[in-house]
Amino acid sequence: MEIQELINKLNELEQLQYAYRYAMGITNFDGNTVAPKNSYKARGQAMAILSGETYKKFINEEVKELLFSLKENEKQLDFTTLRKVDEYIDEYEKTSKIPMNEFMEYTKLQSDSNHAWEQAKANNDFKGFAPYLEKMFEFNKRFANYRNPEKKPYNVHLDDFEKGMEMDDIDKFFNQLKKDVVPLIKDAVNESKGIREDFLERPFPVDKQKELSSLLTDVLKMDKDNFIIAESEHPFTMGLNNFDVRFTTHYYENMIASSFYSTMHEAGHAIYGLNHDLKYNGTVLSGGASNGVHESQSRFYENLVGRSKQFINYIYPTMKNLFPDQLSDVSANEFYRAVNKPKLSLIRIEADELTYSLHIMVRYEIERMMFEEKVNVNDLPAIWNSKYEEYLGITPPNDTKGVLQDVHWAFGLIGYFPSYALGSAYASQFLSKMKETVSFDSDVAKGDFSNINAWLKDNIQIHGAVYTPKQLIERVCNEPFNPKYYADYLKGKFSDL
Amino acid sequence: MEIQELINKLNELEQLQYAYRYAMGITNFDGNTVAPKNSYKARGQAMAILSGETYKKFINEEVKELLFSLKENEKQLDFTTLRKVDEYIDEYEKTSKIPMNEFMEYTKLQSDSNHAWEQAKANNDFKGFAPYLEKMFEFNKRFANYRNPEKKPYNVHLDDFEKGMEMDDIDKFFNQLKKDVVPLIKDAVNESKGIREDFLERPFPVDKQKELSSLLTDVLKMDKDNFIIAESEHPFTMGLNNFDVRFTTHYYENMIASSFYSTMHEAGHAIYGLNHDLKYNGTVLSGGASNGVHESQSRFYENLVGRSKQFINYIYPTMKNLFPDQLSDVSANEFYRAVNKPKLSLIRIEADELTYSLHIMVRYEIERMMFEEKVNVNDLPAIWNSKYEEYLGITPPNDTKGVLQDVHWAFGLIGYFPSYALGSAYASQFLSKMKETVSFDSDVAKGDFSNINAWLKDNIQIHGAVYTPKQLIERVCNEPFNPKYYADYLKGKFSDL
Repeated sequence: MEIQELINKLNELEQLQYAYRYAMGITNFDGNTVAPKNSYKARGQAMAILSGETYKKFINEEVKELLFSLKENEKQLDFTTLRKVDEYIDEYEKTSKIPMNEFMEYTKLQSDSNHAWEQAKANNDFKGFAPYLEKMFEFNKRFANYRNPEKKPYNVHLDDFEKGMEMDDIDKFFNQLKKDVVPLIKDAVNESKGIREDFLERPFPVDKQKELSSLLTDVLKMDKDNFIIAESEHPFTMGLNNFDVRFTTHYYENMIASSFYSTMHEAGHAIYGLNHDLKYNGTVLSGGASNGVHESQSRFYENLVGRSKQFINYIYPTMKNLFPDQLSDVSANEFYRAVNKPKLSLIRIEADELTYSLHIMVRYEIERMMFEEKVNVNDLPAIWNSKYEEYLGITPPNDTKGVLQDVHWAFGLIGYFPSYALGSAYASQFLSKMKETVSFDSDVAKGDFSNINAWLKDNIQIHGAVYTPKQLIERVCNEPFNPKYYADYLKGKFSDL
Repeated sequence: MEIQELINKLNELEQLQYAYRYAMGITNFDGNTVAPKNSYKARGQAMAILSGETYKKFINEEVKELLFSLKENEKQLDFTTLRKVDEYIDEYEKTSKIPMNEFMEYTKLQSDSNHAWEQAKANNDFKGFAPYLEKMFEFNKRFANYRNPEKKPYNVHLDDFEKGMEMDDIDKFFNQLKKDVVPLIKDAVNESKGIREDFLERPFPVDKQKELSSLLTDVLKMDKDNFIIAESEHPFTMGLNNFDVRFTTHYYENMIASSFYSTMHEAGHAIYGLNHDLKYNGTVLSGGASNGVHESQSRFYENLVGRSKQFINYIYPTMKNLFPDQLSDVSANEFYRAVNKPKLSLIRIEADELTYSLHIMVRYEIERMMFEEKVNVNDLPAIWNSKYEEYLGITPPNDTKGVLQDVHWAFGLIGYFPSYALGSAYASQFLSKMKETVSFDSDVAKGDFSNINAWLKDNIQIHGAVYTPKQLIERVCNEPFNPKYYADYLKGKFSDL
């Protein structure tokens, strides 16, 4: 077959895969946002069947031959096509090792388990969720074993979310944080006790919070023709293509900071999803470089921008307009200090920057235990609570605020959490580099995101999934990943608070 | 092959078809409700590819052999299975005559055309929509010809929406209305001129209108775990299964009657979709008997219930609570008269019951012309306007309020409109029968829908698509379809107004 013919066939494969991914993505999104409560069973069945269909369309001799024929002729391929072929081969090798019936069962489980988690969280009923969670860990351990029997299963998972990362790398990273950052926490928490934050729990009308979310995306120069904001139990972003990205938030009347910062966070993911080079649109290269790099963008907007003094000074008059009664006796600086107040708290997504990594460490250690040791799922609440007591000196009053708080495990995203902490660290390293050419502080103070957005787009986002995280960081920063930027940033910020 | 093996294969086919229908249905729903504006292209491409996939999964020798093997052994099949087989064979024969590439092109066109229509309606730009509309009519004429070259193409279309109906039947029905109802209109309109309706255009806050829509579904005893209300340009209902039905409405601040009655209308469709016998759930028998029968249920709730004096008296205190300022000087009887005031008006979905059929006649005659005569699409606005002048004595000031007002043609639903008028007529005939055993007027006056809903469910809705409209009407009413019930109802109501 001529090389051009092979490339055409690859394009067809891409379009076919895209069509399924699109419809299944929308169906998931719908299930997480607006679908009626009782819809979950039929959705789970439909998704299981369609996942079987996508499996059959991809895992077959014809596709295998196509991919390996292209690989054999790699010298005739341009850089982008070769990267696609490599990604596909990687995916092929991963997926083909999982029997189709188990793959379909797993898709069905994801939907059921997600539903069970929602119910369990709403009713503080870990027991109702435990059987699903148990199956979820079982499936994932088995899959990891199918895929790479020589590697420790948890390392297989870590690599999925952050290519090239293993437990040793994560340990090294966390050890550095334990050395540089953890020692600051106790004093910082003690010294911050006087910072007032009562006003954050005042009732902020939900419709006004929605207005604020919408305004924030305007400030970040996002084009409303290409994205929507929806609502779901747990905020998430789904990037379908360069013209269709959706992110969600959750509005709680008594928690203004929750929707404010989840909007800033998810907007960061969304901006990434909107800024890939158009030549990757709808292809296997249209995701981000990794979960960690995706998190670097979301945490950039959430924390480095959104929790900065400059940004709060800039946005505060708008907030005063929206919430004149709630904020009448609160200054911008008081707001800044409240949303940065380091606290030994229960909920990861509401944690301050300084203590955030502790929440991740708890999850990392539990995932690791679940994979490496014999742990009964029913013991997880107790393990969770004791780790919170150990690291944060605080015990969750119930499982809803404890082990049930995050959706990830319900959906099989095991090994994902470390990428949140890595993302924060990447973001600090990127910011340090950005500051060489962009007047970040004064731009943020003016609410001018043209140069900041352009820098992130041109250096990071435009490349889609072309580079691995390591390659990308080296390319952008001219040095390897270095967590000291993150440690320095935290030390600087929290000594100054 | 054993008969049970064949039946198992049929079940597999059903589940596979269902999975695609589900995901594509959700994707369409998403496109019509929340998707960002620029999403339409990728959605159209994905839907075209998936429609090609569903085509290939259905139109092939294996399925053909399965269906005809089952048909050959029909004596061994229970009633439900045989009905499924017949429906599938019918669908097979329809679809297999359309070449796959044209089928896919058409799916893509539906999405693009729908988008173009939205833009055109928003900008009063018929020219922007005309090329899509032209292609839409071309495709549909060609498809009708493929499917049944012996039949007039427009009759093929009418039969799609209302099995067994041809132009002659529709002509007979409309002629009866022209004889019995149209003569009333002029006087009724003149005599009603004094009825005040100014208050319907007062500003009714959208969030309160949403509350009203939600309350109306509570009154109708709909279970919120099984359905949602969303918003779209043009209200519609999508019934996915017995546990997942969605309907939409559109809230205009200055048109309270619009969301009120579109909610009642779509709720009727939704109730039908929720009440099929569970044994039809997710199967080819889970639709309604026909479009006309579906419309009979929506118009039942919209008009026979929603526009009755009894219902308005019942719901009015709730409305006064929601809209104390807007309705402070309006009595229930004034509201009743306002929403029933016969008017020679422009917009079909806001028309009163008496003049509604005139709007349908305009559309029916235009569709017929487009199929039977040489008409240039660019002449449609002029033709539309002259017909409105002829039938209703009123000329649309622009195309947005004229030929662009309805979505149907943009989506290829040609031959659909007559079923609205038929549905109203069926509804009157059903009501007359219902009144033999249900105290309709007093139940509605009490807001008690238990017996009314149960009658509709047990007699009509539970049967899904098992019976043709003619069979169903005979079964329910012990007589064939008879438009005199409709004429009598209208005469009674409007002489009394």
